[in-house]
Amino acid sequence: MAKKQFNDLGLGTKVARLVNKNGSFNVKRKGQPFTFVNLYQNLIKMTWFEFLALTLSILLIINLLFASLYFFIGAAQMNGLQTGKPVNDFLNCLFFSFQTFTTVGYGHLSPDGNFMSFVAAFEAMTGLMVFAIITGLLYGRFAKPSAKILYSKNLIVAPYQDGLSYQFRITNKRKSVIMDIHARILVSFSGEGRTRTYSPLELERASVVLFPLNWTIVHPVTKDSPLFGKSKEELAKLDAEFIIVIKGYDDTFSQDVNSIHSYRHDEIIWGARFDIMYESDDDGYTVLHVDKLSDYSQYP
Amino acid sequence: MAKKQFNDLGLGTKVARLVNKNGSFNVKRKGQPFTFVNLYQNLIKMTWFEFLALTLSILLIINLLFASLYFFIGAAQMNGLQTGKPVNDFLNCLFFSFQTFTTVGYGHLSPDGNFMSFVAAFEAMTGLMVFAIITGLLYGRFAKPSAKILYSKNLIVAPYQDGLSYQFRITNKRKSVIMDIHARILVSFSGEGRTRTYSPLELERASVVLFPLNWTIVHPVTKDSPLFGKSKEELAKLDAEFIIVIKGYDDTFSQDVNSIHSYRHDEIIWGARFDIMYESDDDGYTVLHVDKLSDYSQYP
Amino acid sequence: MAKKQFNDLGLGTKVARLVNKNGSFNVKRKGQPFTFVNLYQNLIKMTWFEFLALTLSILLIINLLFASLYFFIGAAQMNGLQTGKPVNDFLNCLFFSFQTFTTVGYGHLSPDGNFMSFVAAFEAMTGLMVFAIITGLLYGRFAKPSAKILYSKNLIVAPYQDGLSYQFRITNKRKSVIMDIHARILVSFSGEGRTRTYSPLELERASVVLFPLNWTIVHPVTKDSPLFGKSKEELAKLDAEFIIVIKGYDDTFSQDVNSIHSYRHDEIIWGARFDIMYESDDDGYTVLHVDKLSDYSQYP
Amino acid sequence: MAKKQFNDLGLGTKVARLVNKNGSFNVKRKGQPFTFVNLYQNLIKMTWFEFLALTLSILLIINLLFASLYFFIGAAQMNGLQTGKPVNDFLNCLFFSFQTFTTVGYGHLSPDGNFMSFVAAFEAMTGLMVFAIITGLLYGRFAKPSAKILYSKNLIVAPYQDGLSYQFRITNKRKSVIMDIHARILVSFSGEGRTRTYSPLELERASVVLFPLNWTIVHPVTKDSPLFGKSKEELAKLDAEFIIVIKGYDDTFSQDVNSIHSYRHDEIIWGARFDIMYESDDDGYTVLHVDKLSDYSQYP
Repeated sequence: MAKKQFNDLGLGTKVARLVNKNGSFNVKRKGQPFTFVNLYQNLIKMTWFEFLALTLSILLIINLLFASLYFFIGAAQMNGLQTGKPVNDFLNCLFFSFQTFTTVGYGHLSPDGNFMSFVAAFEAMTGLMVFAIITGLLYGRFAKPSAKILYSKNLIVAPYQDGLSYQFRITNKRKSVIMDIHARILVSFSGEGRTRTYSPLELERASVVLFPLNWTIVHPVTKDSPLFGKSKEELAKLDAEFIIVIKGYDDTFSQDVNSIHSYRHDEIIWGARFDIMYESDDDGYTVLHVDKLSDYSQYP
Repeated sequence: MAKKQFNDLGLGTKVARLVNKNGSFNVKRKGQPFTFVNLYQNLIKMTWFEFLALTLSILLIINLLFASLYFFIGAAQMNGLQTGKPVNDFLNCLFFSFQTFTTVGYGHLSPDGNFMSFVAAFEAMTGLMVFAIITGLLYGRFAKPSAKILYSKNLIVAPYQDGLSYQFRITNKRKSVIMDIHARILVSFSGEGRTRTYSPLELERASVVLFPLNWTIVHPVTKDSPLFGKSKEELAKLDAEFIIVIKGYDDTFSQDVNSIHSYRHDEIIWGARFDIMYESDDDGYTVLHVDKLSDYSQYP
Repeated sequence: MAKKQFNDLGLGTKVARLVNKNGSFNVKRKGQPFTFVNLYQNLIKMTWFEFLALTLSILLIINLLFASLYFFIGAAQMNGLQTGKPVNDFLNCLFFSFQTFTTVGYGHLSPDGNFMSFVAAFEAMTGLMVFAIITGLLYGRFAKPSAKILYSKNLIVAPYQDGLSYQFRITNKRKSVIMDIHARILVSFSGEGRTRTYSPLELERASVVLFPLNWTIVHPVTKDSPLFGKSKEELAKLDAEFIIVIKGYDDTFSQDVNSIHSYRHDEIIWGARFDIMYESDDDGYTVLHVDKLSDYSQYP
Repeated sequence: MAKKQFNDLGLGTKVARLVNKNGSFNVKRKGQPFTFVNLYQNLIKMTWFEFLALTLSILLIINLLFASLYFFIGAAQMNGLQTGKPVNDFLNCLFFSFQTFTTVGYGHLSPDGNFMSFVAAFEAMTGLMVFAIITGLLYGRFAKPSAKILYSKNLIVAPYQDGLSYQFRITNKRKSVIMDIHARILVSFSGEGRTRTYSPLELERASVVLFPLNWTIVHPVTKDSPLFGKSKEELAKLDAEFIIVIKGYDDTFSQDVNSIHSYRHDEIIWGARFDIMYESDDDGYTVLHVDKLSDYSQYP
């Protein structure tokens, strides 16, 4: 891990925020070639509501297309399509399409002619392929490893020994066990006419073996710190942003998981301390109040 | 790996036991937001009996709901529903629902009207989606990497060179090969009015390349050990608990797997030695008696 | 990482190119035993067009085989097969095969005799197994972790401090986040009558924590570099090839991913500089022009 | 990695062979508790022939059970079961079972009574669950990461500088790319009345970045080597066995894969050299002859 300042990450000087609240970078990519993998990633990362809406829409569109095809081929090639009205005929074609696509195939509607039979066979295969894809996507959505780290809303400048320290607090959003968890912080400074610089900050402790409750990550402001002697106003002038990278081993997925976060200079609380967020109850259990993660008290 | 004592894991001073026998932490989490991932983790981690019971219940409930809907739409929109008795009609609706949900679709019962046909199409899709989810969950349950380490029931204080050592013994619950296996021990002390402290213990050997039989993990009590000179009574007064973290590469899953365990001070046997748990049989095979893992003999 | 020159990778002296543009090695393997895993890997790595064409062909062949079998067993053992013409009978056998293979089973065609019924039962099972395999392959194709790194078309020899440097530029083909990305370069020299040698090149910076935009990898030509004092003509004479290995942690797959690439001596541009490929737009966003990755300007 | 000799792996003194040719340890485990995971591992690791035979047997048994149940319930509760002969009735029950289990459901046989309908609904669900499990297992079998390393048949003692060296040769059984490949060797000595010892051997080069062809792993016998001055007869007396562990990053699975192998003292060829197993063809390709992996020539 390079410990010196560097300046070629390239994120611009005017950017509102380097890292978004969801951990993505505030970057637009142009001229990027299409790949199926981006399609897969989008399908994995979209919300459940979006995923279900998209799935149902696609299923409906496919079935409408096949229904139109059956309707076009005509009633003469379908057993059980005895109505005289076109609307009912089309609806029956749609129902036949659904019954074929899902392979339910009751049989009160069935293909009679050769062309109709071929199209129906093709639709049944299409249906099985589509549900094979959906099965894979559902599993991919469920099983995708990712750290769900909750971060305190603010970065806090708290007294520390003789001087100051920058602190923030994290906890696990899930019930899973995260082990061997490591934290890294880069501070990024900008300024008028200057390129952005990125400097790693030394931490009081950069890793913990176990992470059952919360963990307060502390950067003590020593003389070597790029934050030494910097006031609130100076940080604002430098457009300071703190980029956080958390890495740990997640026991549920048996894989290393990462989380990226950032705090801007205007999310710093000066002269405060985090409140304790756990207590022992009467049964001897430790009770962690996850919703108190961001709670702090001003230092008198 | 920080080797110094630290005190901010935060697990309380009064807690009955820090780490439960199944490796989870003795922590209640309040105010934790709901995530689908916890739902997935719960479905993956529950027992097979719970999983099957839950699955069957959900399948039954879904089918009862659709059956009720078909019954409400009425017999006029279903071919083959010729009985005059409501109970039989409802049962036939239920059977029709099962035949649609599983896409078996015999056809002696089939939807006739438009609304019935739409609902049946929707149910067939629901069925395929539900079984897609079940497929993913079954695979997730089977393929989830996890170390199944068996630990000796007791931590043993045994003579070691001129002094003492703390020892426990592990073996692989499975037939899989675990390689490059590492062990770490933290001892946690509490006391009246004091915060808990956590100190790593030096091991005689912290890792082995191969793990075909059993492995005895040994902490020699040198002068640098936080256990130096501590008697049984002192450990009880300090409410001592030993937290074990085992990490290794599992050949079945091709991934690193972890296992967490703990021993409390009242699970220590003083002045004993583990019995040998393997032997050579007449064919030259090494025979490992997994059920002798916890066997020890008092030291004379 | 061995840092000294070595010569036993064995890639020949006359070879047109050591590493192909898709990252594979320019090696033919003979006498290699067949394994199912190669089959799986081929099915995972082929293009989508090839995969779909292969899948449809296999589905068609299986159904033609079963149709022939049904036709051979004869119309006497199938309900609903009332035509007198052999061609129509065969087509109906094919449709019945599709209806059985996909388990759609309308029922207007159904097996009557025992042999026909057995074959149909076997085909339905075959169909389910085949779609189980397709489901797995589709998931495997989607979820296969791999770094999609885009490389600049050329390696560039650019001025650097008092001397020269070799540089190339990479960016992420995807929208995913790649972290803790490492680069390694080996330069390979050959010559008349000599074995090939492979020497690692020291990099100005061998890794970056985050990789949101592009990354220029720079080898400064110091006195210790095997490229020190080498002219364009000498590199051609030595048949120089630069083998690149990029390794990083991909956030989508939560796994380390790798990418291999190479530049031959005739892909080097001498005395040039890469153009800047990002800019800030009016909204403060950083805009990365992925299609400008290979753009350079000759150094005056 | 501990570099000193140790003696507590525990593999017995009389054992015919410590590590079997398939990489498993020559150990019998007794008293080991049953876990579903072993079941999964067995299903993943058995041969394809065993897997298919087991799958078909289970499918047949399940269908025979359901057929018996239908037969027991009786023809009165099934439409289309019009034969008078018990054998034909049972066969029709079996066909109905297959048609239900696979959800093909033609409908010429269909359940009529309530009990029959319930059992059929249950069987259809069972069928879907069984094929969900089969889908997962098929995927697990295909996608299981594992290094398929081919080892030379013999360990060879070859001249090396002023002394000797022990050498063996490996190549990749697959077309996949293995990177950052590491080798470790332990030599195990036994003897009358003594415990087995295990000593790591220093390698000339313990890792290579790329592995496109073959790799010869060389242990030079220096004065520090446990093999220094040992003759063929002494190795036999010590019942020497060489345990090999190969670890690398497989590009197909994006995971680290391992391979374990061993050579016994009677598999050593003294005074030989491996033949070169690749050549350049006329098109400039390097051609690797995988079947020449074990070829050697006696040293004159």
